[in-house]
Amino acid sequence: MEALKLNGEEQMQRAFGYAARDSSGVLSPFSFTRRANGDHDITVKILYCGICHSDLHIIKNEHGISSYPIVPGHEIVGVVTQAGGKVNKFKVGDKVGVGCLIGSCGECDNCNGGLENYCPKPVYTYTIFESEGDTKRYGGYSDILVIDEHFAVRIPDAISLAGCAPLLCAGITVYSPIRHFGLDRPGKRIGVVGLGGLGHLAVKFGKAFGAEVTVISTSESKRQEAIEELKADSFILSHDMKQMQAAIGTMDGIIDTVSATHPLKPLLDLLRTDGKLIMLSAPDLETPAQVPLFPLFGRKSLVGSMCGGIKETQEMMDFAEHGITSNVEVVAMDYVNEAMDRLARGDVRYRFVIDIANTLTNL
Amino acid sequence: MEALKLNGEEQMQRAFGYAARDSSGVLSPFSFTRRANGDHDITVKILYCGICHSDLHIIKNEHGISSYPIVPGHEIVGVVTQAGGKVNKFKVGDKVGVGCLIGSCGECDNCNGGLENYCPKPVYTYTIFESEGDTKRYGGYSDILVIDEHFAVRIPDAISLAGCAPLLCAGITVYSPIRHFGLDRPGKRIGVVGLGGLGHLAVKFGKAFGAEVTVISTSESKRQEAIEELKADSFILSHDMKQMQAAIGTMDGIIDTVSATHPLKPLLDLLRTDGKLIMLSAPDLETPAQVPLFPLFGRKSLVGSMCGGIKETQEMMDFAEHGITSNVEVVAMDYVNEAMDRLARGDVRYRFVIDIANTLTNL
Repeated sequence: MEALKLNGEEQMQRAFGYAARDSSGVLSPFSFTRRANGDHDITVKILYCGICHSDLHIIKNEHGISSYPIVPGHEIVGVVTQAGGKVNKFKVGDKVGVGCLIGSCGECDNCNGGLENYCPKPVYTYTIFESEGDTKRYGGYSDILVIDEHFAVRIPDAISLAGCAPLLCAGITVYSPIRHFGLDRPGKRIGVVGLGGLGHLAVKFGKAFGAEVTVISTSESKRQEAIEELKADSFILSHDMKQMQAAIGTMDGIIDTVSATHPLKPLLDLLRTDGKLIMLSAPDLETPAQVPLFPLFGRKSLVGSMCGGIKETQEMMDFAEHGITSNVEVVAMDYVNEAMDRLARGDVRYRFVIDIANTLTNL
Repeated sequence: MEALKLNGEEQMQRAFGYAARDSSGVLSPFSFTRRANGDHDITVKILYCGICHSDLHIIKNEHGISSYPIVPGHEIVGVVTQAGGKVNKFKVGDKVGVGCLIGSCGECDNCNGGLENYCPKPVYTYTIFESEGDTKRYGGYSDILVIDEHFAVRIPDAISLAGCAPLLCAGITVYSPIRHFGLDRPGKRIGVVGLGGLGHLAVKFGKAFGAEVTVISTSESKRQEAIEELKADSFILSHDMKQMQAAIGTMDGIIDTVSATHPLKPLLDLLRTDGKLIMLSAPDLETPAQVPLFPLFGRKSLVGSMCGGIKETQEMMDFAEHGITSNVEVVAMDYVNEAMDRLARGDVRYRFVIDIANTLTNL
């Protein structure tokens, strides 16, 4: 982390990571610089970074708007190595987490209300689109990160650092709607559609809050995992009409983690009056969902939710200290392309996490 | 209202109204009987009955499931002429209103929570579907009605009886979501899509609650009505991209009263974080709406709402005493077919109400 002098003023920092250069999505070693550590900044030595499914979408340009080169990664856990003069929350040596967001306008109602994730001018952790402006941002598949301390959260001492990394995106993405929509208590019935990175954490958080959790899946093979490993209360095979029929009108909220297009009416039918079908993912920017309106007339909602604010992310992290982490497969940096291939096939239980500190070697 | 003795026990009551006999939807004189007045029942001499757009859909079998003959009408205002021995809320001579519902299971969570409108076993005021069981029910285009007192509400003395009739369906349909979704206060911004029977009442209730109300319409001709007559704060022509653009992200809730298929993305874009697009109508049972999911990811909801519970209907009626009634065109019973034709063309400001007491003559 040697400092570089540019223009006699800025002290840029050398950084190294893995980048995709084109829509093949193949990741390979990449040298770049990060900004000098400002007064409100911390520099973080990255220890672990989770592989989010959106990383895969973006490096393969599946939304058609990716801007290369891309260093993905927004499920970052690391240790503070520098802290600017006006940093209050952290000191050198602290363990911190960084998720999808590293900036926002700081002035709008959402920012003022702790909902930076819904700021109309979000600054995502790594540049996705050409339109995001001149300064390219690089994500967590790299050795260091420099960010405003506001966008980092404290990692509890007792937690597994590798298992904690996916909480920064997958975790907060399910935690936030469970809390916001009042599904976080005994007596509430939560459905979880899809048992992947997000889904398995939705089961864990739902159960930790005392709710009754039902996993809804297209695959009978997930039944045992759902019930025995993740301690879900029940399991519904989504194409078994009898099982679906028996659950009609029983759920307060459904956390739908499936990005592929799928029928929504059967899920709306599972909701009680005032129930929420909470979409956390979408196939792409353009394809609309086919939503039958009549099933909504039980004052049911179709709603989208995206990540969470910083305050809420810290709250989740503190709550997670009571033993909630992601089930992870820790991989070496040079395994990342194979991990991406396996992720595309759904072959991971439930999240890959890259062991950055021990396996990312600056060539 | 002579009582008829049948089987030496039940004392059926002779009734007379206008019925549709087939999907032509033409209404013509129709004699039938109503049940004897039971212990919990009131018999109501009908004074006025509003013409709801759903009456038109149903008599013309637009949902494909209508069961003839049909006596429509569920915006009923009348006077109590008999009260059963166990009736508590009303006495003979009281003015009462009856809306869409005259029964529910009385046992489910919704019924217990005052949400009879979301009971899974609702009893609508008139029979619509073949599947609704053996006992045919006839609506308010008729001289008398017999109902359990629970499903009637008290009409305040000071209110116009004709202008009050549409509150029983159109009124409560907009009042309920405005209240439930917290749009009922100063500082909230409500959009109203479509300026018909429901829409004009949404403007009136929204303004009465102190909210800021914007009418969104496809027709520039509605601007003056919206602003000058109904006192809306602003007006947006929905196909004027500049006007729509200027309103992006400004609304807390949109009351969408339009049943014809129309694009939802532009409306979702008008919502703020946590905003609700509240659908009160749908083209038919089968046609799904095309809903782009990305605009939902500002934690925006697409939600359906249907009428209101009895307690809430009474609350609305008491609130309406402060001068909120429907703008109506009062018509004679024998004008009903012409009124239906005009309604189909949108030629009414804003609700037809049949003067039953003075114009329905038993031939």
